[in-house]
Amino acid sequence: MAENKKMVEAITSMDEDFAKWYTDIVKKAELIEYTSVKGCMVIRPYGYAIWENIQRILDGMFKQTGHENVNMPMFIPESLLQKEKDHVEGFAPEVAWVTYGGSEKLEERLCVRPTSETLFCEHFANIVHSYRDLPKLYNQWVSVVRWEKTTRPFLRSREFLWQEGHTIHATAEEAIEETERMLNVYTRFCEESLAMPVVQGRKTDSDKFAGAEATYCIEALMHDGKALQAGTSHYFGDGFAKAFDITFTDKNNKMQFVHETSWGVTTRLIGAIIMTHGDDNGLVLPPAVAPIQVVILPIAQHKPGVLDKAAQLKERLSKIARVKLDDSDNSPGWKFSEYEMKGVPLRLEIGPRDIEQNQCVIVRRDNREKTVVSLDELEQKIPELLAAVHDGLYQKALANREARTYACTTMEEIPAALEKNGDGFIKAMWCGDEACEDKVKEVTGVGSRCIPFKQEKLADTCVCCGKPAQHMVYWGKAY
Amino acid sequence: MAENKKMVEAITSMDEDFAKWYTDIVKKAELIEYTSVKGCMVIRPYGYAIWENIQRILDGMFKQTGHENVNMPMFIPESLLQKEKDHVEGFAPEVAWVTYGGSEKLEERLCVRPTSETLFCEHFANIVHSYRDLPKLYNQWVSVVRWEKTTRPFLRSREFLWQEGHTIHATAEEAIEETERMLNVYTRFCEESLAMPVVQGRKTDSDKFAGAEATYCIEALMHDGKALQAGTSHYFGDGFAKAFDITFTDKNNKMQFVHETSWGVTTRLIGAIIMTHGDDNGLVLPPAVAPIQVVILPIAQHKPGVLDKAAQLKERLSKIARVKLDDSDNSPGWKFSEYEMKGVPLRLEIGPRDIEQNQCVIVRRDNREKTVVSLDELEQKIPELLAAVHDGLYQKALANREARTYACTTMEEIPAALEKNGDGFIKAMWCGDEACEDKVKEVTGVGSRCIPFKQEKLADTCVCCGKPAQHMVYWGKAY
Repeated sequence: MAENKKMVEAITSMDEDFAKWYTDIVKKAELIEYTSVKGCMVIRPYGYAIWENIQRILDGMFKQTGHENVNMPMFIPESLLQKEKDHVEGFAPEVAWVTYGGSEKLEERLCVRPTSETLFCEHFANIVHSYRDLPKLYNQWVSVVRWEKTTRPFLRSREFLWQEGHTIHATAEEAIEETERMLNVYTRFCEESLAMPVVQGRKTDSDKFAGAEATYCIEALMHDGKALQAGTSHYFGDGFAKAFDITFTDKNNKMQFVHETSWGVTTRLIGAIIMTHGDDNGLVLPPAVAPIQVVILPIAQHKPGVLDKAAQLKERLSKIARVKLDDSDNSPGWKFSEYEMKGVPLRLEIGPRDIEQNQCVIVRRDNREKTVVSLDELEQKIPELLAAVHDGLYQKALANREARTYACTTMEEIPAALEKNGDGFIKAMWCGDEACEDKVKEVTGVGSRCIPFKQEKLADTCVCCGKPAQHMVYWGKAY
Repeated sequence: MAENKKMVEAITSMDEDFAKWYTDIVKKAELIEYTSVKGCMVIRPYGYAIWENIQRILDGMFKQTGHENVNMPMFIPESLLQKEKDHVEGFAPEVAWVTYGGSEKLEERLCVRPTSETLFCEHFANIVHSYRDLPKLYNQWVSVVRWEKTTRPFLRSREFLWQEGHTIHATAEEAIEETERMLNVYTRFCEESLAMPVVQGRKTDSDKFAGAEATYCIEALMHDGKALQAGTSHYFGDGFAKAFDITFTDKNNKMQFVHETSWGVTTRLIGAIIMTHGDDNGLVLPPAVAPIQVVILPIAQHKPGVLDKAAQLKERLSKIARVKLDDSDNSPGWKFSEYEMKGVPLRLEIGPRDIEQNQCVIVRRDNREKTVVSLDELEQKIPELLAAVHDGLYQKALANREARTYACTTMEEIPAALEKNGDGFIKAMWCGDEACEDKVKEVTGVGSRCIPFKQEKLADTCVCCGKPAQHMVYWGKAY
């Protein structure tokens, strides 16, 4: 029991130390464990099961939109990485280099992929010849490596898991449409499966992906008022195609360059879930990705009939939800804390008196609301309650974001708003000049997050220089 | 059409050049494409879809037997790799070493995992304390790297995809049981999903996994009479536990070392499928893992009603099988060749006359048998025909193996049998002495494949030295 008791010790409260609260949760909910390689972590069964649910749902959405999975090598020869100038400049400083194979020094260094544009480009150049070969709509689920200085589980690690979509198209219009389509897929996934509202927008030029013409993104606001980039979708134009000579003959037998996109989300989404929904009792999981959606806890389980009934319920409810029965001899109190820590959306309690009355008690993780439910109505009630948890999480996160989004028209208002209300999104006008973008960050501490698709005209002039404004921008402190 | 025509060119025949036949298939069935990194390949959508089916089925079997998925880092610090003496000796000569992170030289080299025992051990030592924490039944789906000199797609590549199960147990008995359980899972998978008969056995000591007490394996016989190791399951005893100090307190509060296993199969299984079932027209896929199980080919598709009917069938049959409709304007002859090359188990042809008669023609890929089927009976007939293809493939492979398994009682008989009947399995008695094992290989060219669980007593004495025999061994040339 000594081991177990550790689990119910309270975690650091969010208000006291948000960063510590976060790492307490990733450890105590058994999502990850550290390793002897800095910035590389073990994703434990409970954490990995969340990722498997994310994968399953997203993979289905990718396949529905016509994408196929492939697998590229993890190594990129240095000369291949260097083919696209902006791309290599962006990534070379943070890649891991393989220099030896066994005891032999390699003739050319290989980097462990930080992202796979160059590999996909080499492949596309090999397999595409005619307009009939287009489009190619590819995706892969792999891990990538970026040699970060400071690391945090899920949010910034040296190796992380992700999916990277890479597509090529006959025309710029088609490629732009794809870039937007996949941003919409990510948005729908975040809102419908993670209960996490996001702002869709475009990155400013200084914040684009290395080699992209345009980077679109979705930005979410965490509990602590910091912004988190939850997914990106890049339009490359024909820049990579020219660097890698990816051409095709069109219907008029004319040689053309392809137009390319890439898009990705990572295990960072698990960090986003924690910081969007978690509370001082631990993780709170959106039902769609929760490894356990309903935990059945028998009460007074030594009494005759209780464990049998609980086992029957587990069997019966497994048809409609991911259900776990905990019939261990830990105390109910310990179990309550344990499954709160693990963020299980619904807790179903059943004891001798419940059985007598043909009912059980269901407790929602998000708001602790208790409902007494007839055992005859579980097939209807459980999906309703799971949907209610999802809605509750979404509405709470949306309300948090709205309460923490401040429209500012002068530079002075920015730190004042953050000071008064806590960190959050700043909405402010911008002239489009990078110098102003830098100055806002320098003076107020918030960087540009995106130029949202939904524009508002808060003022006529740039919040920084007073010249005519071109865009309304979301600014914030970022993970 | 120029592009397309390339596809129907005949491939090299198996009898003429088996190795070339094999690489023709992997390329022309669009399973892989080479890259500029030797020994690293792109697994293309059709090849990857086979792997996805393998993963889905095996992952289900692993979860049914109580295993959970996790994800370990891809990097192993040199000092960690060195903790178990036999293990490092086995793997260090063939690992890729990362020596730089960005522009900084690392203080300690990291190898890209060739296998992950050391990482799992480090993790187990961190998380296991009491007998209540046992067993841990973990698996991961990742890629690993081994710096091979000579490489062949799927069979031996520098990076390959696999799953690696790693488990720890309180007792040796439990761990041995697990090792056997997983070998049985592999066997069942190969036979029931890949239609590939395998011989179960134990490796001789010279052929054990680096660090294992015992390595169990399944061995399959390819078309050309060469043996292929299709999966392995290792029992480690407490050797790794002692090297990594993985202990737990038992029920009597006594400190004990855990007992460990690991087991894996790789994308090599795709090579095994090709070389077990393929023919001179291309790939032949077992239905359980075929990305397309039924291809619908409209005949005279310009005639009114044909394409509509074909589309209706596709919609209807998608409920019972993985179905593709090819309504492109390629000729039926071209399409026949294309889907034969891709090994699609069933081809469904439907033309104007068929529609009049409310029927279609279904052709099996494995034996080209044609069946005229009433459109009203497809839901019954298609599963039957898929099962018949599976059985046909299995029986043919089994017959091939039986015809090519030769019992020999003297050394002289071995080359004579291979000479007369072609390569295959040699069954012969062995005294258990490594010197004899080496000599058999040196003199006859066949190495020990395994000591099969199903023993036969072919003679009283070792085929090599004449001393009393301990085991009947399968010998063969190997991939």
